[in-house]
Amino acid sequence: MRTLKVALLGCGGVGSEVYRLLGRQASDLAARIGTPLEVAGVAVRRPARPRAVEIPPGLLTSDAMALATRPDVDIVVEVIGGIEPARSLLLAAAKSGKSVVSANKALLAEDGATLHQAARDNGIDMYYEAAVGGAIPLLRPLRESLAGDAVRRVLGIVNGTTNYILDQMDTSGVGFADALEEAQALGYAEPDPTADIEGFDAAAKGAILASLAFHTQVTAADVHREGITGVTPADIASARTLGHVVKLLAICERSDRGVSVRVYPAMIPRSHPLAGVREAYNAVFVEAESAGRLMFYGAGAGGVPTASAVLGDVVAVARNRLAGTRGPDATTYADLPVLPMGQALTRYHVALDVADKPGVLARVAEVFARQEVSIRAVRQEGRGDDAQLVIVTHSAPDAALARCVADLGAMDAVRAVASVMRVEGEGEE
Amino acid sequence: MRTLKVALLGCGGVGSEVYRLLGRQASDLAARIGTPLEVAGVAVRRPARPRAVEIPPGLLTSDAMALATRPDVDIVVEVIGGIEPARSLLLAAAKSGKSVVSANKALLAEDGATLHQAARDNGIDMYYEAAVGGAIPLLRPLRESLAGDAVRRVLGIVNGTTNYILDQMDTSGVGFADALEEAQALGYAEPDPTADIEGFDAAAKGAILASLAFHTQVTAADVHREGITGVTPADIASARTLGHVVKLLAICERSDRGVSVRVYPAMIPRSHPLAGVREAYNAVFVEAESAGRLMFYGAGAGGVPTASAVLGDVVAVARNRLAGTRGPDATTYADLPVLPMGQALTRYHVALDVADKPGVLARVAEVFARQEVSIRAVRQEGRGDDAQLVIVTHSAPDAALARCVADLGAMDAVRAVASVMRVEGEGEE
Repeated sequence: MRTLKVALLGCGGVGSEVYRLLGRQASDLAARIGTPLEVAGVAVRRPARPRAVEIPPGLLTSDAMALATRPDVDIVVEVIGGIEPARSLLLAAAKSGKSVVSANKALLAEDGATLHQAARDNGIDMYYEAAVGGAIPLLRPLRESLAGDAVRRVLGIVNGTTNYILDQMDTSGVGFADALEEAQALGYAEPDPTADIEGFDAAAKGAILASLAFHTQVTAADVHREGITGVTPADIASARTLGHVVKLLAICERSDRGVSVRVYPAMIPRSHPLAGVREAYNAVFVEAESAGRLMFYGAGAGGVPTASAVLGDVVAVARNRLAGTRGPDATTYADLPVLPMGQALTRYHVALDVADKPGVLARVAEVFARQEVSIRAVRQEGRGDDAQLVIVTHSAPDAALARCVADLGAMDAVRAVASVMRVEGEGEE
Repeated sequence: MRTLKVALLGCGGVGSEVYRLLGRQASDLAARIGTPLEVAGVAVRRPARPRAVEIPPGLLTSDAMALATRPDVDIVVEVIGGIEPARSLLLAAAKSGKSVVSANKALLAEDGATLHQAARDNGIDMYYEAAVGGAIPLLRPLRESLAGDAVRRVLGIVNGTTNYILDQMDTSGVGFADALEEAQALGYAEPDPTADIEGFDAAAKGAILASLAFHTQVTAADVHREGITGVTPADIASARTLGHVVKLLAICERSDRGVSVRVYPAMIPRSHPLAGVREAYNAVFVEAESAGRLMFYGAGAGGVPTASAVLGDVVAVARNRLAGTRGPDATTYADLPVLPMGQALTRYHVALDVADKPGVLARVAEVFARQEVSIRAVRQEGRGDDAQLVIVTHSAPDAALARCVADLGAMDAVRAVASVMRVEGEGEE
């Protein structure tokens, strides 16, 4: 029986768990694949450095490229992250005929087309289930289970750090800065939290989800992105009054005109299945024409859950390799246009500090009417100098809504635009 | 380009939707598979009968066996249901080298081993994602995404009819009979609801889930089964007092001693992700060693959602056929013993109508102690003749708990055992 040899590139939080599980689960993996796996080598920057998992020194190497292209290697697992050297390593591995498993969302979102093309050209598998939603099976269901359906919309909580922060703001009433500090203390946020709190991480995942859902190449650069640093306790309180909760969402939508992919904090109804996703958990809600509404929920990050997804892919590519075949491609035949944010249909929740005088509502309503935005509900809170006007719109092109907000800000009767946030998941459309 | 020919066996609620979608989605399906699909024929009992979907008369036949084995057919889709003639048709199709897609939970749960063996012997695919959870991707995630992990437990709400009934009982306070009648009026329950309310449907699905999760052949006959006909408003109220809700669960558990597969109504905490699954929706909660807790949620039945799952499988087997290969098998290498119900570790909630007299609690506690069952909480409600003693146990072998209940029923101080229900999903173990 032929052993399949696995090269592990990277041995951090995910890589060390992959290594550990390849050992601990060896007999189960062999039974499921039909042949044993063997670790051919582990590429790390500093082989001599002490690490969490014990690796025989003979397996460690600092020459990732040599390992990724070594003739006896069958499967290359990349858990380094980032664009380079990961891209060069994966392309070289593909060219050498290795099957490839990666957890690299940034790379897949930036240059998935090149990687997929390399996989096709060389007849190998390139799997990356771990890139989105940690252990939650998402990419395989989208690519395979829903292959006979038409996905209309994907709404995802795909970043655990920001969900933890927003959940803390909602449940404890703390502000953003305090919630971030707490998340950092607990290890849910990095010392430099930019990628998470500015939505870069969610945008990369949104691009990957949209590409698979709509059979269209979408890159991170196509994704409209807003982070959560501007979310205030007032926004959270406004959402609560509406019976809503604020979540950072990756939204992938298909309409007759094309696809829209966007990441921003939005209010969703507390009755929505995503509203109950607490702490650092992830969940992705999918609406498909025939399947209806589906949700996938679980741990979206962490070395151990992510390693589970990596190993699921290792088993899949190993089975394919043994059968002399490759798994289904991520097709991009639909090649739909990606719409600019201004053309996306959204709904706004706007809170205005106003002078409590007759005629204010009429003038505010006039602003919306001028942009042909239909108002769904208006509510005045407080009186006199503390008066606040809260408006929720029906859906309209985002650009028209943004113009309304700009025009409102310039009105004499409006002292301040206290809160602006989009509303999603109401199933109005 | 070679067209792949599909034979459709059965044209009821699911079959007619499959036929309709094969037409409506034809160009998308062709792009995703790499070649067009063509309906070779549709086998029905009465070809002349008027039907919801328009099918050219030349495609209709009453000879399902001839269609399933016709030389030009590539893929056989079976949506007839039941054991025979479905089994004979699928075995003949496999023997003729057709790839097979089925939505038949009863058949897969009764005789999956024979079907899988026939698939292996003839080098064809036998896929059946639609058999459990309608459109929810469940079997593919268990078989493929979690192939590198060790599943510990599956808790599933896999029957929409009973979930609708229990949800109505919980939210409207109606009794079982009224809730069933309403479910029937709305089309959520069949005129003969036995398969649903007695748990046969859930048991079949539990057997399929356990087989995949534990790499062990489990049949419907191995599943301990209790339906919901005995669930009373008092049980629902007791659950509410405890902060719980009653759900019919399919439970698949793995321990050092083997696997336990069982279906019964149980109380679960309202904070559990499954507690929020309302109406006729389904959801399956999976606990795996590395992945942690995952949940899959969606429409568990209905012609259109089920057709989505069938078509996903059609695309998968078509791609494999085109590539000259077959997908991963449902392995049964682990071959774990299936434990009898008495050995399953469960927790009980017991409500006793008692005489409110000194010493009653001591005697009740003595009954549990004799069976070595540890009590987690005791609460007395009411006084005098209306006194009720509510006991929640820690986990213990089910047989010991059942003996406690029998002994309590025989006690002089116990006027009646008002409610007995298992408690699940507390994550105590």
